Amino acid sequence: MKKTLLSLVGLLAGPALANEGQWQPHQLKDLSAELHKIGLSLPADLGDLSKPPMSAIVSTGGCSASFVSPKGLIVTNHHCAYAAIQRNSTAENNLLASGFLAHDLSEELPAGPNERVYVTESATEVSDNVLAGLGENLRGEARHETIQARIKSLIAECEKDPAYRCSVPAFHRGAQYFLVKQLMIRDVRLVYAPAEMIGNYGGEEDNFEWPRHTGDFAFLRAYVGKDGRPADPSPDNLPYAAKDFLSISSAGLKAGDPILLLGYPGKTSRYKLPSEVRFAQDWDYPKRIAEYRRDLAAIAAATAGQAESAVRYASVVKSINNRMKKLEGLLAGFSRQDILGLKTAQHDELRGFLANQAEASMYRKLLADLESLVAEDQALAQAELYYELAKASELLKSAVTLHRLAKEGEKPDAEREPGYQDRDRPLLKARLARLEQNLVPAVDQARWLSALERYASLPAEARNPGFDQAFGLGKLNLAKALGKLYARTELAETPKRLAWLDKQPADFQASPDPLIQLAIALHDTELALEQRRKAVDGEFERLVPRYMNAVMAWKHAQNLPVYADANSTLRITYGTVDGYAPRDGQRNLPFTTAKGILEKHTGAEPFAAPAPLRQSIAARRYGRYADKSLNDLPVNFLSSADTTGGNSGSAILNAKGELVGLNFDSTYESVTKDWYYDPKNTRAIHVDARYMLWVMEQVDKAGNVLKELSIR
Amino acid sequence: MKKTLLSLVGLLAGPALANEGQWQPHQLKDLSAELHKIGLSLPADLGDLSKPPMSAIVSTGGCSASFVSPKGLIVTNHHCAYAAIQRNSTAENNLLASGFLAHDLSEELPAGPNERVYVTESATEVSDNVLAGLGENLRGEARHETIQARIKSLIAECEKDPAYRCSVPAFHRGAQYFLVKQLMIRDVRLVYAPAEMIGNYGGEEDNFEWPRHTGDFAFLRAYVGKDGRPADPSPDNLPYAAKDFLSISSAGLKAGDPILLLGYPGKTSRYKLPSEVRFAQDWDYPKRIAEYRRDLAAIAAATAGQAESAVRYASVVKSINNRMKKLEGLLAGFSRQDILGLKTAQHDELRGFLANQAEASMYRKLLADLESLVAEDQALAQAELYYELAKASELLKSAVTLHRLAKEGEKPDAEREPGYQDRDRPLLKARLARLEQNLVPAVDQARWLSALERYASLPAEARNPGFDQAFGLGKLNLAKALGKLYARTELAETPKRLAWLDKQPADFQASPDPLIQLAIALHDTELALEQRRKAVDGEFERLVPRYMNAVMAWKHAQNLPVYADANSTLRITYGTVDGYAPRDGQRNLPFTTAKGILEKHTGAEPFAAPAPLRQSIAARRYGRYADKSLNDLPVNFLSSADTTGGNSGSAILNAKGELVGLNFDSTYESVTKDWYYDPKNTRAIHVDARYMLWVMEQVDKAGNVLKELSIR
Repeated sequence: MKKTLLSLVGLLAGPALANEGQWQPHQLKDLSAELHKIGLSLPADLGDLSKPPMSAIVSTGGCSASFVSPKGLIVTNHHCAYAAIQRNSTAENNLLASGFLAHDLSEELPAGPNERVYVTESATEVSDNVLAGLGENLRGEARHETIQARIKSLIAECEKDPAYRCSVPAFHRGAQYFLVKQLMIRDVRLVYAPAEMIGNYGGEEDNFEWPRHTGDFAFLRAYVGKDGRPADPSPDNLPYAAKDFLSISSAGLKAGDPILLLGYPGKTSRYKLPSEVRFAQDWDYPKRIAEYRRDLAAIAAATAGQAESAVRYASVVKSINNRMKKLEGLLAGFSRQDILGLKTAQHDELRGFLANQAEASMYRKLLADLESLVAEDQALAQAELYYELAKASELLKSAVTLHRLAKEGEKPDAEREPGYQDRDRPLLKARLARLEQNLVPAVDQARWLSALERYASLPAEARNPGFDQAFGLGKLNLAKALGKLYARTELAETPKRLAWLDKQPADFQASPDPLIQLAIALHDTELALEQRRKAVDGEFERLVPRYMNAVMAWKHAQNLPVYADANSTLRITYGTVDGYAPRDGQRNLPFTTAKGILEKHTGAEPFAAPAPLRQSIAARRYGRYADKSLNDLPVNFLSSADTTGGNSGSAILNAKGELVGLNFDSTYESVTKDWYYDPKNTRAIHVDARYMLWVMEQVDKAGNVLKELSIR
Repeated sequence: MKKTLLSLVGLLAGPALANEGQWQPHQLKDLSAELHKIGLSLPADLGDLSKPPMSAIVSTGGCSASFVSPKGLIVTNHHCAYAAIQRNSTAENNLLASGFLAHDLSEELPAGPNERVYVTESATEVSDNVLAGLGENLRGEARHETIQARIKSLIAECEKDPAYRCSVPAFHRGAQYFLVKQLMIRDVRLVYAPAEMIGNYGGEEDNFEWPRHTGDFAFLRAYVGKDGRPADPSPDNLPYAAKDFLSISSAGLKAGDPILLLGYPGKTSRYKLPSEVRFAQDWDYPKRIAEYRRDLAAIAAATAGQAESAVRYASVVKSINNRMKKLEGLLAGFSRQDILGLKTAQHDELRGFLANQAEASMYRKLLADLESLVAEDQALAQAELYYELAKASELLKSAVTLHRLAKEGEKPDAEREPGYQDRDRPLLKARLARLEQNLVPAVDQARWLSALERYASLPAEARNPGFDQAFGLGKLNLAKALGKLYARTELAETPKRLAWLDKQPADFQASPDPLIQLAIALHDTELALEQRRKAVDGEFERLVPRYMNAVMAWKHAQNLPVYADANSTLRITYGTVDGYAPRDGQRNLPFTTAKGILEKHTGAEPFAAPAPLRQSIAARRYGRYADKSLNDLPVNFLSSADTTGGNSGSAILNAKGELVGLNFDSTYESVTKDWYYDPKNTRAIHVDARYMLWVMEQVDKAGNVLKELSIR
């Protein structure tokens, strides 16, 4: 047995020693030997959230960012500031196209009422508060509701100070919980963004690709009230006095140099069972890809020749394409790397380890129970996906949400479903308002018709009887039925839609709006599906902690630290600047350079580099930013840091803790890292700080921003 | 001036010192310093056509090949032996799919009645014979006809021994002529070819691409009569006793190693004027691409749902796609590298040099005359392309050829147009017979209709009045008219088509076949266009030699040897094993390995690697063929050798003169090398002899062939 475990260290755990892991800050001390190996000798308190650099690393909700001046100046990706730039653009003054520079505070533009900056002040383990005394007999939905009630109560307590947003995410699939307390700054402004053809050079075509030449950076600023506390947007607010901020290095890195990467990775699935991998590979991803493709075809047909509709759905199409490309990449990666085989081998080793433990028979039963539960979860996931297909109308989904909000409103706030509490109302309202930017009723109707036709063609056992009855499926001509619904509903009108936010269930009952009536008819169906989900989740919450504790014991027996799957909390990852072989006979080099921008330039988007950029490159006006060994200006670089979605905008630090770049993407070959980190091929893509500084200095003449930064 | 010339040596001529050039064997002695620099110390008589290795390098007409045993065994590319493999295949016994191995001489299969092996015995300069006494006053068509008559007479004299095929190709655009005398062996047999999914692994998809994993090799054998002289195919023939042959090295090469490449490059355009580059870039290539695309669409529409028609046109489609991809690559390369700018700079330097010569005013006039002539040539090229469009019917073109042959037959053989002499009859007949393999009358008709509709839409001045009148363009419904022609013609029937080879002009006049009648009606139009071509060519023949002599003087003033454009004669090129950067941030490595075959394998063509191959790779049964530094079996490699079409199958020799691989393709980024050799990016693709030997030994068990080879 001992021997098997040792061979395993080489075979599977080896990668864990090679830059794998998204580590919680408090774990850093366990990694010092590993970090030392790649050339990082860090202060013992690096993981302290109250001290730099951790105290400078913030979240914007979906992206990572960092303070880079004591006046609340924040650097993040251009694509993370995209909405802020877009909302300040007009046809006459298109800031996306031209870029934007505020020459002083007075010129800074509101990023938008829903933009936030979250500063993580603490992450306190609350596993006991959440889990204590939950006996084995508390199962399914009841267990889930108990856990949720405890979490809601911890959040409510924490959010008594309205300056804070709190959460209690699960770590290690529910083996641990932490209470995360974040200062929530809600006046955010746009300071500087290069032109889109710098910040998003290559666009969709280069998404996930290497070589890359994207200047994916922008600057925002956090504002607070005169009392220094978060406040609603107001001209009277003042820049937030960031206690700590990052210095920027203009010295740059070279291949082989170590880096730290700090940010808020969203979600990974590194600890899933082989059967869960198989389901993703054989059912979930292929099905989703097929539905994305069908939906894209429906949108294309419905917007063909309709310029305005096409514009409205451009970002929807982009988002679907992005998700589809990611799933296709995952499938390709699954088959290229045999992730299932690797995971199965890993799982077999774990089972071998557990078979040698004192509680071997308990573990055997646990694994069997888990497998039954996974099967139940997958059956439910299929039902959920088909039900999503049945109600694939943005307007119907709005009606369902609004009606649910009214129904939840009948309960005391603390008892309401998460997502429908008072604390959720602002974001709910923002979402319902924002819908108008991407909605054309006729297109929504066409997408729904396409989905419904697909749904109607499913065998009866795959369909949802509750939906079929509420909708009258089988009795109606689908196209005609949808025609009537869309002719009569008023939900497409934003003021009317938003007015429902303040209505009571009785108002819904009395409404002649056919989509409102359908939402009411679907209410019990929704609840039933939700209950099934809660029952499964409760069982996962009962079984998985024991499983994960076993995994951790197994890792600890190999002297390996264990990191939790990403869950949008602040994490540290490390790595080295390094290229990789995308395939036999080819190597992707660790740096791209400015000459590659000219190589790609066609004059047509997404390869329409602005003339001032091209001229400066052609003239090689690189100044101190040129890299000697590259004999050119570095633009993007690759590292082996372990990242995922949410790490966009993450700070890349050199061995001195100075900012040397921003994370913004991963290579196509890396996309399977959500399931499995492969040290040979997993690479994240970063924009080099030298390129950022050079664009600011040479192309955009952003002297005022440069002056505010601390450049070393 | 001196200074400019020196700077030029660095700027433009520099490349000529970096592996550029397709050298005539007799020039090798001038290159010994260059060859020594890359590690090649060659015997002084390496260029001697009567000695090895040159005496072992043969041509198959379109490809290059080498003798590799004293019994006439020849190695060349799989794609060069494709027709031989295909013609021996049946539905039941598909040798393309399975591969083929003759275990002894008796099992060898006829390669086909038109297969040839040409052994170059001598290349003698005959510039004086061709050019002596042609005064400046002999111009245009008359000059061209005089030159042709002298060439025909030299050929006729040389071919008195029917064992030989002779030619008098122009070198340096007509500044020099050489009489090339080749032993023509006409009994060629198929010895061994790996399965197509080894020999053409990657197919069209990988064409021009790197990384590449193609085992593009096959073995043929030359047979002669019992007297040792070429003979018609016969079971009584014996293997040709090759005086010299190449040994094969199993030691392989590594990155940076020097190589020699020997073969028969077809055609390059390195000495064209900038205005000729511009015409190709702005008119000729875009127009041809557009017509290829139209033709492909016509074929696709006409063969849709017609499995048998689709099969017949598969190789036509493949060939059009191949030519189109090449032109597209050329256009992309022209814009990427600014070939026109480079050529213009080069030309400006030449003009500067000439302006300082004693005959400056003569050169000024020469360049001006050349430019006028180029303009005339381009106007004619447009007329020719449009006329080709008008008669884009394989059946009509057969009719035109047959009628022309009859008309030419009225003259003494020596006075006939080249291509219609007695010596041309066998190949002409073969071409007319072979047509049936790729002809379905309805598809031919649809292609012609598509082309004619395009032609009819041209402005009147672009059309050919002779054609319009003969065809009755404008008076007929095109579709109906072609329907009638195809309903009545008998030319689609091969025996009837071939019967016309022996008819007289009067027989044509009396024929009721409407395509024969159209060919007769087009006769004068054909001749008129041909006369315009001869007039232009004659003027080129008058002006270009003086221009090329000036270019040569200019190069000699820089101490640079000058090579002639490729013209299908035996040449030597050299280089080193080296990768390249296809774009910023990426490097194509000089070797691919067997693991890449598994990476690419999908199970579907063109990536359906045979099971025995995959199993041997998976088991790493590489034996002595593995490369230590690659830790794998090398498959293909790149070198900087200067090649073009016709170099397929060329022998790659190491510093000891041993065969280490075969040339078979170039990278997409190299395609502009027909116009301009770029040392940084021009790379040829070779199959590694180690992979060839390994496939023979491990996969195909071709022990008998291995035994016949001289392996070192």
